[in-house]
Amino acid sequence: MLEKINLAKKIDKAKYKQIISDLELKIAELQRKAKDIGIPVILIFEGWDAAGKGTMINQLILSLDPRGFTVHPINPPNEEEKLRPFLWRFWIKTPEKGRIALFDRSWYGKVLVERVDKIVKKSVWTKAYDEIKSFERQLSADGTIIIKIFLHIAKNEQKQRFKKLQKNRSTAWKVTKDDWKHHKQYQKYTDAIEEMLAKTDTEFAPWTIVEAHDRRFAGVKVFKTVIDAIERKIHKLENSKAVKNSFEQSTIQVENISSSVLDKVDLSFSLTRAEYDSALDKYQLRLREIEHEVYKKRLPVMIVYEGCDAAGKGGNIKRLVRGMDPRGYEVIPFAAPNEVELAHHYLWRFWMKVPKAGHIAIFDRSWYGRLLVERVEGFCSEEEVQRAFREINEMEAHLVNYGTVLIKFWVHIDLDEQLRRFEARQNTPHKKWKITDEDWRNREKWDLYKSAVDDMLFKTSTAYAPWTIVESNCKWYARIKALKTVVKGIEEKL
Amino acid sequence: MLEKINLAKKIDKAKYKQIISDLELKIAELQRKAKDIGIPVILIFEGWDAAGKGTMINQLILSLDPRGFTVHPINPPNEEEKLRPFLWRFWIKTPEKGRIALFDRSWYGKVLVERVDKIVKKSVWTKAYDEIKSFERQLSADGTIIIKIFLHIAKNEQKQRFKKLQKNRSTAWKVTKDDWKHHKQYQKYTDAIEEMLAKTDTEFAPWTIVEAHDRRFAGVKVFKTVIDAIERKIHKLENSKAVKNSFEQSTIQVENISSSVLDKVDLSFSLTRAEYDSALDKYQLRLREIEHEVYKKRLPVMIVYEGCDAAGKGGNIKRLVRGMDPRGYEVIPFAAPNEVELAHHYLWRFWMKVPKAGHIAIFDRSWYGRLLVERVEGFCSEEEVQRAFREINEMEAHLVNYGTVLIKFWVHIDLDEQLRRFEARQNTPHKKWKITDEDWRNREKWDLYKSAVDDMLFKTSTAYAPWTIVESNCKWYARIKALKTVVKGIEEKL
Repeated sequence: MLEKINLAKKIDKAKYKQIISDLELKIAELQRKAKDIGIPVILIFEGWDAAGKGTMINQLILSLDPRGFTVHPINPPNEEEKLRPFLWRFWIKTPEKGRIALFDRSWYGKVLVERVDKIVKKSVWTKAYDEIKSFERQLSADGTIIIKIFLHIAKNEQKQRFKKLQKNRSTAWKVTKDDWKHHKQYQKYTDAIEEMLAKTDTEFAPWTIVEAHDRRFAGVKVFKTVIDAIERKIHKLENSKAVKNSFEQSTIQVENISSSVLDKVDLSFSLTRAEYDSALDKYQLRLREIEHEVYKKRLPVMIVYEGCDAAGKGGNIKRLVRGMDPRGYEVIPFAAPNEVELAHHYLWRFWMKVPKAGHIAIFDRSWYGRLLVERVEGFCSEEEVQRAFREINEMEAHLVNYGTVLIKFWVHIDLDEQLRRFEARQNTPHKKWKITDEDWRNREKWDLYKSAVDDMLFKTSTAYAPWTIVESNCKWYARIKALKTVVKGIEEKL
Repeated sequence: MLEKINLAKKIDKAKYKQIISDLELKIAELQRKAKDIGIPVILIFEGWDAAGKGTMINQLILSLDPRGFTVHPINPPNEEEKLRPFLWRFWIKTPEKGRIALFDRSWYGKVLVERVDKIVKKSVWTKAYDEIKSFERQLSADGTIIIKIFLHIAKNEQKQRFKKLQKNRSTAWKVTKDDWKHHKQYQKYTDAIEEMLAKTDTEFAPWTIVEAHDRRFAGVKVFKTVIDAIERKIHKLENSKAVKNSFEQSTIQVENISSSVLDKVDLSFSLTRAEYDSALDKYQLRLREIEHEVYKKRLPVMIVYEGCDAAGKGGNIKRLVRGMDPRGYEVIPFAAPNEVELAHHYLWRFWMKVPKAGHIAIFDRSWYGRLLVERVEGFCSEEEVQRAFREINEMEAHLVNYGTVLIKFWVHIDLDEQLRRFEARQNTPHKKWKITDEDWRNREKWDLYKSAVDDMLFKTSTAYAPWTIVESNCKWYARIKALKTVVKGIEEKL
């Protein structure tokens, strides 16, 4: 997912000046508050070389009271440090109550540079994940705020920055052989970083990815992340009631700074009628054959459909199953939970519908409701949302461990296309039932929904159960993409 | 540790009748309360064959309103169940709010009978631990109380029970070939059970081991466990302030039902002066040699001393280090934390003292203060105590992963011997400083301390960092045992 993030985010100069001065005042105020209450804060900066970690840290500390923080630049361990367990040098640097510790690089070196450069063995860095999680969980449980920033730039951008640094005599020394070596390993690093993000993004110590092409944007996002985290903690301490909606928390609103995958979705893909017809025949036929193999080999298959209103989920599912033998599949629609379902864990009603091995279950909406409508409408607390990220990943891991083919579709259209479809529905008598006042209301909340969808796509796209985005402005294209994905996904496991 | 538990616990008939009728009334009342508040309760019974699971469940449900519970006897999965992920059949049986689900055997079959009988592959049952933990964490986070009972009997007792059942024609069918097969695998099962207890004893779903030789004792302990768990939950919901001291919680007090390892410690071990002198010379000499090898091989060594007041920790440490080279070891005493230490995580001050590889650190008292004095005196909340069990095990795992030799001593004497020593101290001018009013006060709280020590020994004795109990009524014996243990512990890693 890292490479699918929209890195083109920018803030223009005039707007930046106004926002940043608010943020600077706010962060200074929060530092004082955190000191008074006695909250320790850990802030770590990881990211690509030349992504601007140093600049960010400098900018941040200029707003802080220097008596209240310490910056720890983390280099490879020295002799004294090598003679102790690897977390020792970080444990002894944990801040006392009311102080802020900023780490320029951190304990994550163990699973990044030390891993990729093969300085440590696999048995060591795989164990390190658990050790890191324990460490962060222990500090967090004791009251420490842990903020983890990853500054993200594309490979090309990194190259250009290295070259620019090298051109200038006063900065040329900054670019080392190792930097170029790591640059060439960009893909290897990406894999390591994605694993790191997936394994260590926890409720108690979440990662924030900061798009760092534009320094102004990155600066604002870093400030905002730190401010939100401290405000949330203070809020929680002052008022133990669960916070209802994370999107409405902060005192300073900055638009559009969350990381987005949706922004980069190319909705221009399309097919002609002829292309569609021939592909439809081909894949529907193949799917029927596959369905029988699925039964013979006792393969369990689950296909999840989520998507925007009017994106065409229903029509898509219809084409998916049209050629199939109805004894082998079931389409299971999910709406709001009923009373009995509400009296159980929210995942219970989905567990009830887990298909038998050899059968295909198609979920029209799913457990992801927790991270979409329930989150945006405040039907569950933000704490429950954070918990759900983990719980959903755990459930899917359990399904996949058992051998389930799990395919997840996000069916996507843009707002213009949605408007066109809404209006068409309203003006077509036999389609009018499809459009309700709620659809219009949801449309108005699109920004909130978009943040929630982006968050969901990022945090629940795992190696074992990745999301497939189905570009759906052209319905024909979307239907064929879904069919193809299902065929391919099952074929791989047969 | 399972085999070190005192299984001789008993309750006599008269006392039993009075206690159990109180408990029965209480449990019925709590069932109603849990129903009103809408708390789901899961109660699972695991244990040795013939340990009395069925009897216990029957006894328990007689006190309950039958409209509010369901008993689920768990057999090997049927065909329908085999066609789904293994937790599916348990998920669909999770109770709704206000109901109690009793499981006669449970999901732990995966890591017990299915593991030992090799019905599932290692890759499956090792993964099952994480899946089980996720499952329980998810339900608990949603508000479910999870009570896990393990009914424990010794191998001999099981044999006698099987024979008795076989003698009687009406019960003979109950003992199957498999039962005898499992009986012969008692040791194999013990290993599996200990691993299961260690890996799945969590704050959110703790295990209770019930000594089941005496049915009356077992009955009382089961009732008490269920009552305490439900009371604790209600208390927590009604009053979100942390519960101060677990030993003072319950409305019905039943003495001495916690599992005890200390009860079985044989304090009669002793040495003669001559035996002592010759052993002392021998091991002190060997330890000095070892100390140099430790340095050459860069082995980190940590030795932890905990024990009763006047048990002789100081004298023991003195003899341990007498022959050693002072450049290679350090004795680090710990008292109450100072202000700076209090402003950090409670483990921080111990991390500060982690020895360099090649050095030996002897901790006179340690992080276990959290589970002893701080717990008993209420200096930390019960929630913090429960967290500490995990945190301490995690810290020790990290140390051992790094290669540390970690040796932990509980230096033990009985109350009579302690009194003798206290009085001797009081009556000997040059020893008088050793005895304070606090010592006498602690002595009065011995029952509370004993529970805490037993709990600590059980929950923090891991395969990688086991406790050694040093029987110390005879100081000579104790000193030699400590020396021997250190020599052996280090030799194994050299």
